[in-house]
Amino acid sequence: MSNLTNTHPTTSGKIPNLPAKTPRLTVVGAGIGDPELITLKALKALAQADVVLYDALVSPELLDYAPSGAARIYVGKRRLHKEFKQDEINALIVGYANDHGHVVRLKGGDPFVFGRGFEEMQYAQNHGIAAEYVPGISSAIAGVGAAGIPVTLRGASRSFWVLTATTDTGALNPEIYTAAQTDATLVILMGLAKITDIAAAFAAAGKNELPIAVIQNASLPEQQVITGTMSDIAAKTTAAGAGSPAVIVAGEVVRYKLEAHLQEQIFATIKG
Amino acid sequence: MSNLTNTHPTTSGKIPNLPAKTPRLTVVGAGIGDPELITLKALKALAQADVVLYDALVSPELLDYAPSGAARIYVGKRRLHKEFKQDEINALIVGYANDHGHVVRLKGGDPFVFGRGFEEMQYAQNHGIAAEYVPGISSAIAGVGAAGIPVTLRGASRSFWVLTATTDTGALNPEIYTAAQTDATLVILMGLAKITDIAAAFAAAGKNELPIAVIQNASLPEQQVITGTMSDIAAKTTAAGAGSPAVIVAGEVVRYKLEAHLQEQIFATIKG
Repeated sequence: MSNLTNTHPTTSGKIPNLPAKTPRLTVVGAGIGDPELITLKALKALAQADVVLYDALVSPELLDYAPSGAARIYVGKRRLHKEFKQDEINALIVGYANDHGHVVRLKGGDPFVFGRGFEEMQYAQNHGIAAEYVPGISSAIAGVGAAGIPVTLRGASRSFWVLTATTDTGALNPEIYTAAQTDATLVILMGLAKITDIAAAFAAAGKNELPIAVIQNASLPEQQVITGTMSDIAAKTTAAGAGSPAVIVAGEVVRYKLEAHLQEQIFATIKG
Repeated sequence: MSNLTNTHPTTSGKIPNLPAKTPRLTVVGAGIGDPELITLKALKALAQADVVLYDALVSPELLDYAPSGAARIYVGKRRLHKEFKQDEINALIVGYANDHGHVVRLKGGDPFVFGRGFEEMQYAQNHGIAAEYVPGISSAIAGVGAAGIPVTLRGASRSFWVLTATTDTGALNPEIYTAAQTDATLVILMGLAKITDIAAAFAAAGKNELPIAVIQNASLPEQQVITGTMSDIAAKTTAAGAGSPAVIVAGEVVRYKLEAHLQEQIFATIKG
């Protein structure tokens, strides 16, 4: 949607009682890893941004899609910068929207999957600022798929359950014990630090040999996939020196993992 | 990835023992509804297609991104055409890849969420054809989000569980009874015909007043959202004449549904 001022003839000069820019917020999912995993709709929003507030998990090259005059402000929580609290981010959104017009809040993955994108929209709307959602490719599905593992598969899984590993207090999410007793594919985000506890929850459900995979840097050239069972995944992950961000997937679907490098192998064979 | 032939100097003429086009398959998620909800990576794959095999839920305008000389073949299951069986689609993929080169299999949503995209990749790889996955925006997350409802929200839901409504035999998916007993947000795809049974499963779990929403044509201009509780959703859905495709979401998150038309309302106020 274009700014309101653009809908008026420019030849008529200033229009009284209208702000130069209509304050508005678009909460945009940047997708995961690979910067090409962003949607056309997200790029359109960026191209109309007056201010971009972006997170740590966003590929820096995506900021190039914003107009050269747009402000680009890092509000993430994973670098050596000042750590922004959610209240501060909310205040920045409203302040920038009122002062500059269109704020694009660019977030890794999808803004409504364990992000605060929804809360930011609520806050903006409560302050009279229109807010729109543009979905993004989520690691919950595509982070698993990038490893050659489908979240559902006939004969292996009829459903998938997406959880975070911890509660607000840092304890293991108690839903993981329940989920371990079902046949759903479990997708656990932000869970690498709890891998031992997660495996133990499945072992307690009698599933010590259930396959599990840890996917780091999904869809990026440096993607690393560690597969194992509940009995050995913690040791394998430690041995591999795996770090965040990582997606964990547990369930029968892991057995069907496609050989990701088949394409390159075929090329090598033909070339050779 | 470009065709192998493009990596050789064109001035050297024909290269013996190399096929004109390397057979390959890219299974591509077209996203939901709004044709702008497709990724750059998907558009790149389409631009390199020799043949596009597409489903019913794909926006027709997306086919324009394929080269003008590429064949476009409908293999969906929802129109008055011949109904393609999965075996036939698999055979078409392999046949077209061997005869013409790069087959793009364009599917609604994400290819690994209750689609056969993974099985098609397995089949192609088993026939010596390299296969790649390009994720898509899934109705499981974005179909809910497009209605102004987040799949997770602090204080309301720590997880979401995505299911289909029926088993292969057409019975209600028994996992729905289990899921109804948890605090997870439930997202049910392809479930409108089972709305009465779904509501009954929640009622049996003592959750007759749990909120539920049915979202039709998510992200399209004709999007329709019906909200209610387990006790009245079936009647409301019938009264509204709701039809497929629809996404069903059940859980506390539905209470927080954003007012989707706030933006348009603000514009109307300023204009008036």
